[in-house]
Amino acid sequence: MADRAALEDLVRVQGERVRGLKQQKASAEQIEEEVAKLLKLKAQLGPDEGKPKFVLKTPKETLTGKYGEDSKLIYDLKDQGGELLSLRYDLTVPFARYLAMNKLTNIKRYHIAKVYRRDNPAMTRGRYREFYQCDFDIAGQFDPMLPDAECLKIMCEILSSLQIGDFLVKVNDRRILDGMFAICGVPDSKFRTICSSVDKLDKVSWEEVKNEMVGEKGLAPEVADRIGDYVQQHGGVSLVEQLLQDPKLSQNKQALEGLGDLKLLFEYLTLFGIADKISFDLSLARGLDYYTGVIYEAVLLQPPARAGEEPLGVGSVAAGGRYDGLVGMFDPKGRKVPCVGLSIGVERIFSIVEQRLEALEEKVRTTETQVLVASAQKKLLEERLKLVSELWDAGIKAELLYKKNPKLLNQLQYCEETGIPLVAIIGDQELKDGVIKLRSVASREEVDVRREDLVEEIKRRTSQPLCIC
Amino acid sequence: MADRAALEDLVRVQGERVRGLKQQKASAEQIEEEVAKLLKLKAQLGPDEGKPKFVLKTPKETLTGKYGEDSKLIYDLKDQGGELLSLRYDLTVPFARYLAMNKLTNIKRYHIAKVYRRDNPAMTRGRYREFYQCDFDIAGQFDPMLPDAECLKIMCEILSSLQIGDFLVKVNDRRILDGMFAICGVPDSKFRTICSSVDKLDKVSWEEVKNEMVGEKGLAPEVADRIGDYVQQHGGVSLVEQLLQDPKLSQNKQALEGLGDLKLLFEYLTLFGIADKISFDLSLARGLDYYTGVIYEAVLLQPPARAGEEPLGVGSVAAGGRYDGLVGMFDPKGRKVPCVGLSIGVERIFSIVEQRLEALEEKVRTTETQVLVASAQKKLLEERLKLVSELWDAGIKAELLYKKNPKLLNQLQYCEETGIPLVAIIGDQELKDGVIKLRSVASREEVDVRREDLVEEIKRRTSQPLCIC
Repeated sequence: MADRAALEDLVRVQGERVRGLKQQKASAEQIEEEVAKLLKLKAQLGPDEGKPKFVLKTPKETLTGKYGEDSKLIYDLKDQGGELLSLRYDLTVPFARYLAMNKLTNIKRYHIAKVYRRDNPAMTRGRYREFYQCDFDIAGQFDPMLPDAECLKIMCEILSSLQIGDFLVKVNDRRILDGMFAICGVPDSKFRTICSSVDKLDKVSWEEVKNEMVGEKGLAPEVADRIGDYVQQHGGVSLVEQLLQDPKLSQNKQALEGLGDLKLLFEYLTLFGIADKISFDLSLARGLDYYTGVIYEAVLLQPPARAGEEPLGVGSVAAGGRYDGLVGMFDPKGRKVPCVGLSIGVERIFSIVEQRLEALEEKVRTTETQVLVASAQKKLLEERLKLVSELWDAGIKAELLYKKNPKLLNQLQYCEETGIPLVAIIGDQELKDGVIKLRSVASREEVDVRREDLVEEIKRRTSQPLCIC
Repeated sequence: MADRAALEDLVRVQGERVRGLKQQKASAEQIEEEVAKLLKLKAQLGPDEGKPKFVLKTPKETLTGKYGEDSKLIYDLKDQGGELLSLRYDLTVPFARYLAMNKLTNIKRYHIAKVYRRDNPAMTRGRYREFYQCDFDIAGQFDPMLPDAECLKIMCEILSSLQIGDFLVKVNDRRILDGMFAICGVPDSKFRTICSSVDKLDKVSWEEVKNEMVGEKGLAPEVADRIGDYVQQHGGVSLVEQLLQDPKLSQNKQALEGLGDLKLLFEYLTLFGIADKISFDLSLARGLDYYTGVIYEAVLLQPPARAGEEPLGVGSVAAGGRYDGLVGMFDPKGRKVPCVGLSIGVERIFSIVEQRLEALEEKVRTTETQVLVASAQKKLLEERLKLVSELWDAGIKAELLYKKNPKLLNQLQYCEETGIPLVAIIGDQELKDGVIKLRSVASREEVDVRREDLVEEIKRRTSQPLCIC
C-alpha cells in the first residue's frame, strides 16, 4: 500500500508538471516528453485494484456455474431497467462471494434467511418456492477435519435438541467418489453428471440409477456395475479402514486422501461423542457442483408422529460439506479460502414439528406474555395503563385488553385461550390497600401482593424457561 | 358452511341425475329440464369463495395502488416464465395481504425482514436498495387509541434502549390533514398529492413547498397560504386543545374526530410516561397512501457522536401510523381489519451506532464466546476436543483453535484480539491432578479449578449480560 501511495503521488506531481508546461506554452517536444513520463508512471501503477467503494450489484452471473444440474431451479429475473438478476438459490454462494469481495480469509458465522427455487412446491412436505435456510459455515485455512468435525457436532446438537425423532448423518467425500469413478472407468467429463445419478439412490433403486447411467448418460454397463458394487456399501469407521485396503481404490491418490481424512474425522467425532450418529455411505453424492471434500446429509430414521401413522417422508433435514474452491471463483486473483458448512432445512423441520404437535393435540403458545393486567371493576383503564407501563419498564412481558371497561370474566378467558399464566388484577379495594391481586390461571389461586413486590413475584413465578416443543 | 355443504351435495346429486338420464337416452326435453334444475342450484351456490388450498403467488398487483408517489420505487421483476412480479417495498402491505388471505381479524406481531427499493442508495446514511425493516403491528377492532398508544410506547422503548441520543416523536393524524385541506379549499382529488408536498417540510423550507403546491400541483396561492398557517404549527396537547377551538377546523367532522383521538392519545401517553417525547406536528404527513388515522415519525434531536463533530443527518429513525383500509383491499368482500403499526429503521440506526463506536474508538465484540479451550503443551488435541465438547454439551459458548499443536501464546493472543474473557488451559500436570487452569484474559490471573466445577465457575464468571453498545 505504501508503494502504491508513493507512485500515486509521483503521478500527481508529474501530471502537474505537464499542466504547468502547457500553461507556460512550452515546446510540443517538451510536453510530449513529460507526458510520456506520466504515462510510464501510470503504467507502473497498473489498474486500480483497491477495494471498490460502492459495490452493491450481485447479478445473475454470481450464481451460474455453481449448482450443477440444479441450476435450472434458479429464479432468474429482469428488472424494469432490463438488468438481469437472480434470486439467491442458497446461502452458500452468496457467503463465498461476500468473503471474496471483502477479502476475508477466516470467519465463522451463522445466517438465517430466505432463498428461492423455481421448483414445484409441495406444501405438506415443507417444500416451497420461497423458504428459509439456516446455515453455519467455517472459512479459513486450518488443520484437517477440525472445522468439519465441529460442523457435524453442531448439526447433531441442533437435530437432537429439536425432538424430531432419531436421525442418522450420512457422510462421504467427493474425493472418494471421484477416485471411485476413475478406477471404475468413468470418463473425467462425466464425473459430475454420474455424481447426480448416484445422489438419487436415497429415492430410487439401484436398477433405476443404473438405467439412467447407461441409457441417458451413455455409461458402459460394466462401468455402472463396478460403481454399483461400491455405492451400495455403508458402515462405520471399519468400512473406511476396509476401503483403505481396497487394492484398486487405495491406488487412487484422491480416494486415499479422502479416506484418510474420513478416518481422522471419525476419531474427532468419537471424542465429540457423536460417532454413533454417523454412517459412512458411499451412495451419498450431493447434487451441487461446489463441494470438494467431505459431504454429509442428515435423515430422519423413523416417523415422528405416533405409531401406526403414515411416515412423513420429508427426506433430508440438514446437509452440507466442504467447498474449498468456491471463494476463489469470485476472487479476481483466484485466491482460495477453504470452507466447510451446513444448512438446516428449517421449513421441513417445522412441518414435522407441526404435524407432531397436531398428532399429540398439544396446544402451542404463540406468545411469551407472562401476565395480563386486568381490572375487576369499571373505570380502571387509567390504572391498568399505569400498571402495564410499570411492568414493561421492569422488563416483564405484560398485556392488557384494548378495551375501556372489559369484564373480568373476558379477561380471564383471554388468558385461558392464549396460555398467559398470571393475571394481575386491580380493584378499588386493592388500590386503597396498595396491593395487586395476583392470580394463577392454572390453579385459580389468588394472593394479594404489595405493589412494590409485584415485579419480583412475577419474575419468581415465571422463571421456568419456556419450551416451544 | 353447513348450508353450502348441503347445496354442494344437491348439485352433485342433480349432476348425477342428468348424467343418468343421458345414459338412459331420455328425451331431450327431460334432460333440458333437469339441466335447468342443476344450473339453478349452481347459481344458488354462487362462486366458490372458500379459502383456496394452494395460494403461493403474491404478484405485482398486490403492491400497486398502496404507496402513492413512492410507487415508482417498487422493484418490478419478470421471471423467466414471463410472470410479472415485484420485490416487497415494505412489510406493511404483505402483512395486510396475509391477514386478508388467512381471514385473521386480530393479531399482534413483529417481523424483521428485507425489503427492496429501486432508489438511489446512500451508503453512509444507511440507505440501501436492499435493507432490513423491523415492524410491529396490532390488528383488530379495539377501543380507540389503546393500540396506538402501545405502538408509540414501544417505539420510545426501542429508541431509548439503543443509546443513539435524544429523540422526538412527531405525531399527526391523516383526518386532521384532510379536514385542514378541505377547509383551506384544496380540491378532494388533490388531497394525496398535497399531502406529499407537506411531507417535505422536514427537509425543505415552506417557501419551496408552497412553490411546488402552486407551480407544480396547480393550487391557488391563497389556498397554499392557508395551509401554510396550519402546517407550520407544532406543540403538545395544548395545541390539540387550541385547534379543537379553531372556528373553521372544529366545524370539519374528520378533523374533529382526529383531534379528539389525539387528545385521548396524549392522555394515554402521559400514563405511559412518554408524553414529553411526543410533539403534535401539523407538517407531518407521511408519503404513503394507506394511512387513515394517527401517523408518527421519530427523529433524532442531536448528533450522537462527540460535540463539535458534524451532525449525521440520518433523518427519521422510526415511523408508522394507522391504516384501517388496507386489509379490506385484499379481502374479496372488502371486510376491514383496523391496523396500527410502526417500522424501525434498523439500517439507519446501525449506521449511527457504528459511527458512534468509531468516534469513541470502542472495540466491538463480534462473538459471545465465553471461553477458549487451550493447551500448554503439544499432543493435547484430543484432550482439547473432549473438553470443548463437554463445555458445549453444558451450554457454555466455547471455542478452540483449529490447529493440532497451537502455541499457548497464540491461543492467548487470539483471546485478546477477539475479546474472549476466559481461557481453560489443559496441561499434562493439570490432567494428572484432575484440574483445569482457568485464566482471566483481562487480569492474567490463573486458578486451578476442579474439572467437575469448571462449568459452574465459567457460568459464574460470565453471568454479566453482554452489551453490544
